[in-house]
Amino acid sequence: MRNSVLRRIAAVAVPLLSCLVLSLTSSCSGASSARTGASAESPSPPRYLFLFIGDGMGAAQVKLAETVLGGENALRMTSFPVSGTASTHAADRLITGSAAAGTALATGHKTTIGTIAKNGDHSADLKTLAELSRDRGMRVGIVSNVSIDHATPACFYAHARSRELYSAIALQMASSGFDYFGGGYARGGLESGRPAGGLVDTMRKSGYTLIQGRSGLENAVPGGKYWAYGAYDGSGALGYRIDGGDRRLRLADFTRHGIRLLDNDRGFFMMVEGGKIDWACHANDAATTAREVEDFDEAVAVALSFYRRHPDETLIVVTADHECGGLAIGNTATGYDSHPELLRHQKLSFEAFARKVRRWAERKNVSFPMALDSARVYFGLGDVSRDSLLQLSAEERKALEKAYRSSMRRGGGGIAYGSGDPLTVALVATLNSKAGVGWATDAHTAVAVPVFAIGSGARAFCGSYDNTDIAKKIIETARLGSGK
Amino acid sequence: MRNSVLRRIAAVAVPLLSCLVLSLTSSCSGASSARTGASAESPSPPRYLFLFIGDGMGAAQVKLAETVLGGENALRMTSFPVSGTASTHAADRLITGSAAAGTALATGHKTTIGTIAKNGDHSADLKTLAELSRDRGMRVGIVSNVSIDHATPACFYAHARSRELYSAIALQMASSGFDYFGGGYARGGLESGRPAGGLVDTMRKSGYTLIQGRSGLENAVPGGKYWAYGAYDGSGALGYRIDGGDRRLRLADFTRHGIRLLDNDRGFFMMVEGGKIDWACHANDAATTAREVEDFDEAVAVALSFYRRHPDETLIVVTADHECGGLAIGNTATGYDSHPELLRHQKLSFEAFARKVRRWAERKNVSFPMALDSARVYFGLGDVSRDSLLQLSAEERKALEKAYRSSMRRGGGGIAYGSGDPLTVALVATLNSKAGVGWATDAHTAVAVPVFAIGSGARAFCGSYDNTDIAKKIIETARLGSGK
Repeated sequence: MRNSVLRRIAAVAVPLLSCLVLSLTSSCSGASSARTGASAESPSPPRYLFLFIGDGMGAAQVKLAETVLGGENALRMTSFPVSGTASTHAADRLITGSAAAGTALATGHKTTIGTIAKNGDHSADLKTLAELSRDRGMRVGIVSNVSIDHATPACFYAHARSRELYSAIALQMASSGFDYFGGGYARGGLESGRPAGGLVDTMRKSGYTLIQGRSGLENAVPGGKYWAYGAYDGSGALGYRIDGGDRRLRLADFTRHGIRLLDNDRGFFMMVEGGKIDWACHANDAATTAREVEDFDEAVAVALSFYRRHPDETLIVVTADHECGGLAIGNTATGYDSHPELLRHQKLSFEAFARKVRRWAERKNVSFPMALDSARVYFGLGDVSRDSLLQLSAEERKALEKAYRSSMRRGGGGIAYGSGDPLTVALVATLNSKAGVGWATDAHTAVAVPVFAIGSGARAFCGSYDNTDIAKKIIETARLGSGK
Repeated sequence: MRNSVLRRIAAVAVPLLSCLVLSLTSSCSGASSARTGASAESPSPPRYLFLFIGDGMGAAQVKLAETVLGGENALRMTSFPVSGTASTHAADRLITGSAAAGTALATGHKTTIGTIAKNGDHSADLKTLAELSRDRGMRVGIVSNVSIDHATPACFYAHARSRELYSAIALQMASSGFDYFGGGYARGGLESGRPAGGLVDTMRKSGYTLIQGRSGLENAVPGGKYWAYGAYDGSGALGYRIDGGDRRLRLADFTRHGIRLLDNDRGFFMMVEGGKIDWACHANDAATTAREVEDFDEAVAVALSFYRRHPDETLIVVTADHECGGLAIGNTATGYDSHPELLRHQKLSFEAFARKVRRWAERKNVSFPMALDSARVYFGLGDVSRDSLLQLSAEERKALEKAYRSSMRRGGGGIAYGSGDPLTVALVATLNSKAGVGWATDAHTAVAVPVFAIGSGARAFCGSYDNTDIAKKIIETARLGSGK
């Protein structure tokens, strides 16, 4: 009764009250808004839209990074006033992949595994958030630290029946009309790890200026169309943060310059992917994972600075496409104890270390004691002067020696998506075990992923919902829908 | 500028507007409120308070149960309009235990591992939600399907420096003044698995009527003080749901009769623990885990029925004390595939099956082919007529035979908190592996736990916060604070 009366009053008063409602209910989270200086809402629809996707970044990956980096205030994304969770299943599989999940986040529709922004039977293209933004006269930027034609970024500008069609996907950058591509090179534009002609020509003919390196990026002026990329490897991806190269362009740089180049009165949409969190999790390498989350969060921090200058007009949503690795803080060896801080002693990614081992095997010039020296330098293992927990037991040494011999016989082995090199696998697993970190799989898992939001319209991201709802909420909040 | 003007208007208008704000912003979740027929909020503070604690129930446990039980609508708790997540660390350890986490949920304060509702150095008792409710003239009920003096329920009525002080803890039921204890027996009131005299006498002298079994419970009349318990094992706990005994009293029964006995105009506080989710996770037994979540959710459904009759006066909060097992839907053997539905073929808990194996070992009357028959009957393993995925490879048979021989030699082994029986462990692990379920540890993990809420004041449980905030939010919402 009393409720129905209130509802009637509310119905009359809504137009007046809605802005007040929003300004009064500014947060759904215990996270300190003092840290961000933020209110979650403002009355006008946002015109600066950021969607950050941490590939493979489940709640455990975020927690691990926070813990390794030094506690609750270590990450920007967890300081956002709004948080929620999103289910991730694909149309045809409980455990999703980056293409189906990327399509859900980009279009608001479920699709089948491997499909890029098309419906499940590939009979129709699905309109993406980026395309809707472009059609409304906003500028559009797509940023990733893996190759720009990898599944996640591809889902925002391309439509393809398979994520593996890299060349066809990369060419769709040229026809997208988007204003800025930043981060990795295109895997579909590489032959034997080097740029192939077709893609570059097509991009230039379509009006894109190609930029490699810092000075080019710094000198780029707003108004043009750009594809900017950094020092990339044979897969088109930037290097792991843990592997140094501090002067190299990183995700945060491409985000910062992207904002500078996109900023205009009609607004912009920017998608930023931290793509190598997933890769490190496939390899069950916790230290590299934590540093990749840190790298991703630095890009979030850049958007947060922009938000502070435009709090009423900006919406930042940070989420993931899926969890990877079944990561747990906790493992059978350490039981209720955990020492994630030990992961700080790891100084190279599984990938970079496996490259090192491959050279050892080729040159046959590194004995097991020398390999143990490297274990100390690059993983802290055996270095009790740093932490007594890093001590290697006789059993652990024996297992490492066995792995070393296997590596020397096999010549190192493959390194992409999980290191096959026995010594690298053993060293990473030994440090993970001592740190109290466990992994249940080397593939993805079906657990819901975290969502963090700040800015105009952020409160819609409270609660639990499906990953398709994230795109729908952005479309609704920013009024990107075609009918509006 | 515009915002500050709005804020000034808001400051004047808050008393009038706050109720409207609440009725307008009724949900933070994509979950269908049609399923619950619910609005998340009402203007008056709730006087019927439910706190459900799934011991060991992380987001993965909830997802697993949903999937095994048949999809998104399988559980009541995930239909609640509000959801959030809570961090769980103890004062002195990143990976918490049930005592420290129970204290956080019961009192709003962090404490040290093993401590029951006292501060970290044990110098002071911490007031619990249940005690605050009692002091305000509300009735109080404490329900668990493990022993009623186990860490989680104990944190609501007892104060002890160690959770291991079962006898001392159990005696504090008598002095609590609470109206209803329901579920398990007291471990501190058992000697060699049978009731010892002291506790029963003390409870009776303090005015409690002790009830065992269904008819006694059904005949109990409101107004008295009761301790009702069901068929319990040597630890004082009720049996696993998967082990049948359908006519036995279960968590939902103790919740239903608890509500009947507690219901009164001044309101009540009821804590209900699903305590054996944790135990099944310690054993890495996914099928038993899913069924325990189902059992817990049935108790939630009872409270939900009550809520529907008193939507404006009831608050239900469902959460967990910590995750256990590092459970993942996804494992290395099955990669991106998963078949959680296979878990439906398991018909006994690890514990009940290990008891069976122990008898085989004692009687020496079961051959390996006979053991394989049992594997088919109780785990579905090898029964390709039910599902071709249940086929046992030659390698798997060989591993099971090895485990069988070890079990016969060892005589079965311990069963509490993770089965030590080799054959039981092997069978459970084989089915889990085929189902695509992985575990990272046999202990707890540090990941944040889910929170689901419905009813008056529920919206406060949106977002991410600490487990201590859950108690604080309940105190604030229900105005249980001493100063108010």
